[in-house]
Amino acid sequence: AMRGARNMEGYGLFLALLGSALLVGFVSVVFSLVWVFRYREGLGWDGGSAEFNWHPVLIVTGFVFIQGIAIIVYRLPWTWKCSKLLMKFIHAGLNTIAMILAIVSMVAVFDFHNARSIPNMYSLHSWVGLTAVILYSLQLFLGFAIFLLPFAPVPLRAALMPIHIYSGLLIFATVIASALMGITEKLIFALSSTGYSLSPPEGIFVNCLGLLIVIFGALILWMASRPQWKRPPDENAKVQQPNGGAPEGMEAESTMTDCSNADKSDVGFNSEAARKRNFKLDEAGQRSTM
Amino acid sequence: AMRGARNMEGYGLFLALLGSALLVGFVSVVFSLVWVFRYREGLGWDGGSAEFNWHPVLIVTGFVFIQGIAIIVYRLPWTWKCSKLLMKFIHAGLNTIAMILAIVSMVAVFDFHNARSIPNMYSLHSWVGLTAVILYSLQLFLGFAIFLLPFAPVPLRAALMPIHIYSGLLIFATVIASALMGITEKLIFALSSTGYSLSPPEGIFVNCLGLLIVIFGALILWMASRPQWKRPPDENAKVQQPNGGAPEGMEAESTMTDCSNADKSDVGFNSEAARKRNFKLDEAGQRSTM
Repeated sequence: AMRGARNMEGYGLFLALLGSALLVGFVSVVFSLVWVFRYREGLGWDGGSAEFNWHPVLIVTGFVFIQGIAIIVYRLPWTWKCSKLLMKFIHAGLNTIAMILAIVSMVAVFDFHNARSIPNMYSLHSWVGLTAVILYSLQLFLGFAIFLLPFAPVPLRAALMPIHIYSGLLIFATVIASALMGITEKLIFALSSTGYSLSPPEGIFVNCLGLLIVIFGALILWMASRPQWKRPPDENAKVQQPNGGAPEGMEAESTMTDCSNADKSDVGFNSEAARKRNFKLDEAGQRSTM
Repeated sequence: AMRGARNMEGYGLFLALLGSALLVGFVSVVFSLVWVFRYREGLGWDGGSAEFNWHPVLIVTGFVFIQGIAIIVYRLPWTWKCSKLLMKFIHAGLNTIAMILAIVSMVAVFDFHNARSIPNMYSLHSWVGLTAVILYSLQLFLGFAIFLLPFAPVPLRAALMPIHIYSGLLIFATVIASALMGITEKLIFALSSTGYSLSPPEGIFVNCLGLLIVIFGALILWMASRPQWKRPPDENAKVQQPNGGAPEGMEAESTMTDCSNADKSDVGFNSEAARKRNFKLDEAGQRSTM
């Protein structure tokens, strides 16, 4: 399956970074669970602290980890033989799951606040966090309407793709910044202000969770911004549209949405050719953007 | 002076974004001053709160605003007739000022903590913030040694430039995230925890400062990542190195470090030619990186 990808420039490095990101992301989720089960009141849906605790767990799981994977899913070399349309569904699907988890995690906080008569939406964390959820939902809706549905004209897709990519990465970074503010707030409140400054085990542990989230974000942003690791232009689509050379986001969709039967001899060749073409573009890309 | 730049693709949009960034950055600095003078104890160097207050003011001024300008300084079209070497000195100089202000702002906090016997370095804000200052200093030192001093071989510069750019943008984003955590901490402590939740004027005002910082960061990151707004290859260097076409960061340094006497008829032409060459590379770059 990885025949065509095997020679990809820096493939080993990409795999190492992907493995690191998966590990750091997974450990972050585990840390959020250990935080609420070992140091806090566990999980529940009763209007109390156990309901609030869904907030950090679902944010780390959905809005950080799953969103991060959704961002780099086009760059996994073994998916390059799958159709672009299938990958778009996976990208949109993962982002939809992340959005739902983020919304549920907000509901948990509002429920908790209302049950205790704590005001909502007073902190910078809440302002930035809610803005991020709204922009993320808008990004998902517009991405679906423009890049997945077949109605948007080709020049519009081409003009909006750089904005879609920039917005996606900016929202991801904003979500991480918001998570760090949330950790700061919760530790100060839960450890009753002066307790945090004595560096108790919970304070140290959750600070480490914050650092893990920053490292996860840095790994995803590196992988997402290397031109040489970009998915090559869709060969299958090109076969169906022989004038070829259509810019990104403009290929006619391939009818092949299944990638399990792609073990044809030309897949390796096409991927390799695409890689070489991509590499030439990289040099210009590096030259131009770096 | 702007003759060559006038036809730059999207020049008006660049100017509008630059004006917005300067405005938002300037207003952020004003907000930090209003915060400490109107709502807090003003500025002083006495081990008390007035000394602490240098921390937000110097961070917003140096580590956010000046660092942001340092990042986009190569992209100002009217500097393209200045030598690359001069621009490197300006880039390094602004970053040095930002680093000094960040270090002084940290000293203010340590002094304040020590005078009040408050522990240092217990919070996630302090961990992330100190890491950012250390990485920023390292970035400045390595940037100076590799890209400004004439000793590093050309392939090393070429290999490290993408890392330098990525690190710079990542550190900038991390500084902003750290500033947001700092605002969160200070508001909770200063408004004695429950006071913040009642949305007093200071809380609302400083939340707005946080949003301004996020908007400033978003504007800088957009301007810094558009391939079409990149400084064109150095024409003056090319004249002295007629084999030409040396990749970024590899030009022989021009002896012309002054850009005041550059009102020659060929400047406009050369800039225009460079712009066109850049634009062609852009298309490949957009194709390749977006």
